[in-house]
Amino acid sequence: MDVESVKRYFKLEDGSEIESLVNELPPRFLEPLTISGIRVDLIEPGRVVCTMKIPPRLLNSYNSLHGGATATLVDLLGSAAIYAAGAPSVGVSVEINVTYLDAAYADEEIEIDSRTLRVGKAVAAVTVEFRKKKTGKVFAIGRHTKYLAITSKL
Amino acid sequence: MDVESVKRYFKLEDGSEIESLVNELPPRFLEPLTISGIRVDLIEPGRVVCTMKIPPRLLNSYNSLHGGATATLVDLLGSAAIYAAGAPSVGVSVEINVTYLDAAYADEEIEIDSRTLRVGKAVAAVTVEFRKKKTGKVFAIGRHTKYLAITSKL
Amino acid sequence: MDVESVKRYFKLEDGSEIESLVNELPPRFLEPLTISGIRVDLIEPGRVVCTMKIPPRLLNSYNSLHGGATATLVDLLGSAAIYAAGAPSVGVSVEINVTYLDAAYADEEIEIDSRTLRVGKAVAAVTVEFRKKKTGKVFAIGRHTKYLAITSKL
Amino acid sequence: MDVESVKRYFKLEDGSEIESLVNELPPRFLEPLTISGIRVDLIEPGRVVCTMKIPPRLLNSYNSLHGGATATLVDLLGSAAIYAAGAPSVGVSVEINVTYLDAAYADEEIEIDSRTLRVGKAVAAVTVEFRKKKTGKVFAIGRHTKYLAITSKL
Repeated sequence: MDVESVKRYFKLEDGSEIESLVNELPPRFLEPLTISGIRVDLIEPGRVVCTMKIPPRLLNSYNSLHGGATATLVDLLGSAAIYAAGAPSVGVSVEINVTYLDAAYADEEIEIDSRTLRVGKAVAAVTVEFRKKKTGKVFAIGRHTKYLAITSKL
Repeated sequence: MDVESVKRYFKLEDGSEIESLVNELPPRFLEPLTISGIRVDLIEPGRVVCTMKIPPRLLNSYNSLHGGATATLVDLLGSAAIYAAGAPSVGVSVEINVTYLDAAYADEEIEIDSRTLRVGKAVAAVTVEFRKKKTGKVFAIGRHTKYLAITSKL
Repeated sequence: MDVESVKRYFKLEDGSEIESLVNELPPRFLEPLTISGIRVDLIEPGRVVCTMKIPPRLLNSYNSLHGGATATLVDLLGSAAIYAAGAPSVGVSVEINVTYLDAAYADEEIEIDSRTLRVGKAVAAVTVEFRKKKTGKVFAIGRHTKYLAITSKL
Repeated sequence: MDVESVKRYFKLEDGSEIESLVNELPPRFLEPLTISGIRVDLIEPGRVVCTMKIPPRLLNSYNSLHGGATATLVDLLGSAAIYAAGAPSVGVSVEINVTYLDAAYADEEIEIDSRTLRVGKAVAAVTVEFRKKKTGKVFAIGRHTKYLAITSKL
């Protein structure tokens, strides 16, 4: 095994068209990339429910929702639920975990249900459930712990 | 709190320029977005070490590396280490977790050290350490568990 | 700091009465220690709900339920829910995680709700919620992933 | 499936000898149960390395080290490393996770290596590696996040 084969594994070709495209993207692009097109269905204190049709741009090489996209959604929608709980700050991430239960494919409609488990003065925790809209089946579940009192140092 | 305020929290404006840009992206774009520009420094059996200068596109609203980007790198580079261990398949994700220890900012050079803990017939596990190149300080650490025998169902 | 101060931190005194008591315990004692006195309230396919009054033996030095006891209960009751889903084997643990949200004290009545998220041929996952009986408040939450096909090696 | 079969699964027999034994145990017994007989080999700032011969009392029904015992050791020895880093308080647990890589059997000598990843004013994180003494092979790995500023509320 050599560096070239791992580069090929990553499909990283210097000077490719996709590399040029990536290099021209604006700052803080991961967030709009992940949630553009999402629909906010329900907001309650400490809870946000969204619907999204899995877009081709978020697929992995198996053509199912990328595990990194799921984790990014846990981060973003976990923070949204903390915001919906009325916290003055959404803080900084301490820990994120995701368990993957099944694949979800392009154009499948999914529901993302994010609920705070605790919003204290210093620490907040959220659970985020990913369900297939058609069957209600949970295909991924994550948890997000944040430290809220960011004026004092972590 | 209402749906509009959460939409504003997400900075989601329908019909914006960034929305048009996102909608035109090719499939499976998350992967090149995350690792374009990464440099593979070392490959050993079961270990891959990479260097990357944090690109503005992967920042969050605090202008530090997005927690979702870190999780996506745990996914991708964890899989690379399993590949480097000689596994015939890199399998599907069962669990990913990340603990965030410190912020890393735009243009900082970071080192990502991915080592397999186990590569069995069915289950593989990897630890992925994110260090600041200048100081060697670990600023995030993750673990990735994969199920390898994907011909039989998960 | 020296070895003696860490030993004192652990309150490990050689030749103490408690050491003698520990040394005389029968094999596989952690399980009865943890769940003796628990009451099984509800069993459904893939779900087990139990009640327990926190016993003094499971407290930590703050006199609240020990984090290790919570993790052990995630392990045991997660396995019980997999058993209640009709799985022929409860398999071996791949990953356990617990987020601690609040303290629970001696003699508090708690409810432990364990539900399978997936029971496949090879991998099962369970979520385990710990609630205070009086208020319904979640004070800890865990997830347990197991590999079921233990005849072939992990 | 009924309550009785799950009770049998747990080997919970009311009025059994083991139940009497459990009921007579002193408070805070989980800690000495878990670490009695452990040997502290090395203490450095932010690091504690221990050796232990797996005692029969900590086995599961497969006669290997109980996953709950491993998690309890992550809790206890993670706290010890924070103490060894000179933190004035070892705080309260926010999150514990453990990935299980292999079984370890009765009387096997194991080494538990606990290192702080960060000890800040408010949050500390530790990684805990379990190795077989004979081969050096990692058979479990955990992470422990604690909130240190416990005078103000979590």
